[in-house]
Amino acid sequence: MQYLDQKLLQYSKEDYYPFHMPGHKRKRLDFPNPYEIDITEIDGFDNLHHATEILKEAQMRAADLYGSKRCFYLVNGSTCGLLAAICAATRKRDKVLVARNCHKAVYHALSLNELSAEYLYPLITQNDLQGQITPEQVDAALTENPDITVVVMTSPTYEGIVSDIEGIADAAHRHQVPLIVDAAHGAHLGFGNGFPENPVKQGADAIIMSLHKTLPSFTQTALLHLTSDWISVAEVERYLGIFETSSPSYLFMAGMDACIRLLQDQGQELFSRYRGFLDKFYQDALELKHLHVLAKSDLNKEDSFDWDDSKLVIFTGSTGLSGEELHEILLEKYHLQMEMVSGSYVLGMTSIMDDEEGFSRLLEALREIDADATPEKAGDSQEEAGNSRDFIRRMYRTNPREMQIYQAAELPWMEASFEEAVGKMAAGYVFLYPPGIPMIVPGEIITHDFIENIRECRQRKLRVEGISDLAFERIKIVYF
Amino acid sequence: MQYLDQKLLQYSKEDYYPFHMPGHKRKRLDFPNPYEIDITEIDGFDNLHHATEILKEAQMRAADLYGSKRCFYLVNGSTCGLLAAICAATRKRDKVLVARNCHKAVYHALSLNELSAEYLYPLITQNDLQGQITPEQVDAALTENPDITVVVMTSPTYEGIVSDIEGIADAAHRHQVPLIVDAAHGAHLGFGNGFPENPVKQGADAIIMSLHKTLPSFTQTALLHLTSDWISVAEVERYLGIFETSSPSYLFMAGMDACIRLLQDQGQELFSRYRGFLDKFYQDALELKHLHVLAKSDLNKEDSFDWDDSKLVIFTGSTGLSGEELHEILLEKYHLQMEMVSGSYVLGMTSIMDDEEGFSRLLEALREIDADATPEKAGDSQEEAGNSRDFIRRMYRTNPREMQIYQAAELPWMEASFEEAVGKMAAGYVFLYPPGIPMIVPGEIITHDFIENIRECRQRKLRVEGISDLAFERIKIVYF
Repeated sequence: MQYLDQKLLQYSKEDYYPFHMPGHKRKRLDFPNPYEIDITEIDGFDNLHHATEILKEAQMRAADLYGSKRCFYLVNGSTCGLLAAICAATRKRDKVLVARNCHKAVYHALSLNELSAEYLYPLITQNDLQGQITPEQVDAALTENPDITVVVMTSPTYEGIVSDIEGIADAAHRHQVPLIVDAAHGAHLGFGNGFPENPVKQGADAIIMSLHKTLPSFTQTALLHLTSDWISVAEVERYLGIFETSSPSYLFMAGMDACIRLLQDQGQELFSRYRGFLDKFYQDALELKHLHVLAKSDLNKEDSFDWDDSKLVIFTGSTGLSGEELHEILLEKYHLQMEMVSGSYVLGMTSIMDDEEGFSRLLEALREIDADATPEKAGDSQEEAGNSRDFIRRMYRTNPREMQIYQAAELPWMEASFEEAVGKMAAGYVFLYPPGIPMIVPGEIITHDFIENIRECRQRKLRVEGISDLAFERIKIVYF
Repeated sequence: MQYLDQKLLQYSKEDYYPFHMPGHKRKRLDFPNPYEIDITEIDGFDNLHHATEILKEAQMRAADLYGSKRCFYLVNGSTCGLLAAICAATRKRDKVLVARNCHKAVYHALSLNELSAEYLYPLITQNDLQGQITPEQVDAALTENPDITVVVMTSPTYEGIVSDIEGIADAAHRHQVPLIVDAAHGAHLGFGNGFPENPVKQGADAIIMSLHKTLPSFTQTALLHLTSDWISVAEVERYLGIFETSSPSYLFMAGMDACIRLLQDQGQELFSRYRGFLDKFYQDALELKHLHVLAKSDLNKEDSFDWDDSKLVIFTGSTGLSGEELHEILLEKYHLQMEMVSGSYVLGMTSIMDDEEGFSRLLEALREIDADATPEKAGDSQEEAGNSRDFIRRMYRTNPREMQIYQAAELPWMEASFEEAVGKMAAGYVFLYPPGIPMIVPGEIITHDFIENIRECRQRKLRVEGISDLAFERIKIVYF
């Protein structure tokens, strides 16, 4: 038996290199003993929920850095920012336009405020990634549904796909509704050096960004920016008062302010160094014969308006390896811990805190794996890729809807066999993980095609969440 | 301009002694550099939202220590535990029995799940504190309202008042409903040494305790215990998945596990030492002539079933000082930072991490202040005490109710003068802070008496929250 703090300390002494969150990359940054500065709302240290002094100033510094009108520190992650922004922007039982590849917190907000949802399905890129949402899609959906009161979407995505936020914000504003962007993976955008612009500067009205995912800040810290008067500050404050602890951590807030200061003082230098590492890595990765590292040239404007290349998307290509196998080799043999693994690729996250050693260890490992590969026949591999793309497209096809999520979530449910479930209403979410986009949500009808897709996921050894029992083919349905 | 981390570090080097949360008392506990161990859900480190390995074991250790059936780590404070437990124990639009002195998170849960509330008003002790809730009150309310589905209350309170949880749990269970206890201030109970028993061991079904308030753990860490099958584990998990970040902090969780280990390994020794300090302090405080430190003998069984004397409640007594003035003197002259100040007392929080120096510095300060006091005439002081008690009793009188909180919260509101507001429905909460118990909640009718009470609060220089403008006498009312 090992205690968590002891196991973490032991792990920190080993030589595993983190190609994963948080963005401080476990570097021993200069910071006091954490207990020493962990206080409560005593004299002179303000109150996050009614900030008027030092915490107001700290949040203003963050607003200034990103160029927003108002910035809220979040100590319960982007989760509480998404809940608060969506609840603040809507009244109960409003209709909202939601990109289907949103984080589950967005779906929870739909449930909490009893919202009806119209969905935007992202395009699929030629590399089988969930691609962009376009201004045309948004415009069409808002034209068709003039009663929609807010648009909610994700950019950049986990894989770094960036949508045309300026175009989408214009479309939303033409229809008199605000745009909320989940930029949880985009706090490092907007600092130049070859990275896309930040949604804060592109007309989005509320932007939620995890500070820890891509920057040196403690896990669970995030920012909520407002840039306009489309969403009420008072309502955002009200909902943060509901969804965020009444004892916010000064340790977290101190770490956030230190992160903002680092960006102010050394941001340009750090980002420029980082760009150098990334460019060299991508250049060197071109030598790989079987593995394929996603590059900007692989994506076209139709699938992906822009791409954030801080995410290293490493396809198994013609190595004959599965994503899982590549992940295992990198971890076990090379002590490189990646962020995420999918059927056909592994994903590494990088940040300004990465160092030359990390990138060169990864490149060396990829070179060796590439050299050792027992390649498949090129034809097989291409055929498989085509099947996979078709499969992904089928997977996220719209299901018939009988009820809104909040209505179905209130009803009693039971488990049923896949056969019994066809034609019935889903009682829960079913996700393919990654990318964590729901294939079905409560209130949608389980079709024969859906069941076949789940079976195919299982054959392809993809991780499906939300099925009661995958082996025994049982799923939750609403009964009433 | 000073950054938060810098100001905190500077403060930590000064000689202010913390008679406030968190319970680690800013001691430099042995802990790694916090960035070094702050990871995400990588291989070998489990996932809090679907714990099966080390985080499951850690939560089981906490359950074992307290004697619960199931324990959940909370990284968004007791706030998310209260929201999750109440939502899990109810269906939308259920009726619940709620002690009026509950934390605002309880009221937020009422709103979120559209619950109707019947209130239990705590007795007022002879020292004008909010006293206990009795089993008889609970039994009577449940008899009168057989449609109630759960009882929610606080014990111990901020001031350490403990109710008869065994009796209340029996009453609730006789009526076939579960009992949820907000024991945010009670994580240190149940370890003997003269402290009351923990509600976990007294038949409550769900118990939420802040780990940081009274024990050495980081601010914002808490536990949710389940002890029975009255509240569904699956529903609690579902709601924690909604209200708690999807990126929980390993730093927090490591600190929690270290806290549990400390209690397992050295708990008895630390609590016994702590009891020695407390007993000596209370004994020595008997010498004070004008100041009065609350003691067990001041409370009778009718007002307060039991009392947790870890809270130092120091009444200004006959010193002629207000609570605020006493607070200022302790802070400015003696560098003793108290937790809370009220009209007639200051409150200090203590823990197993306090040391002899802290207690003796406080006692010395009190002795000097006591000796310097310019005492009021005893008669004045007694008369004033009588007035104050009457005032507090009037203050928390039931208001007529027109709507439930969730119904009123959805309606538009406006600001009105106090005169205009009489007879209208309150659109927000009005609190006297401390103790933070609402004098009115949304949906209740603003009466002439209520307005007079607010005016009296202002005269008494008490801190009222929720009034739009106290000086210009404006308050939020519902209009529709």
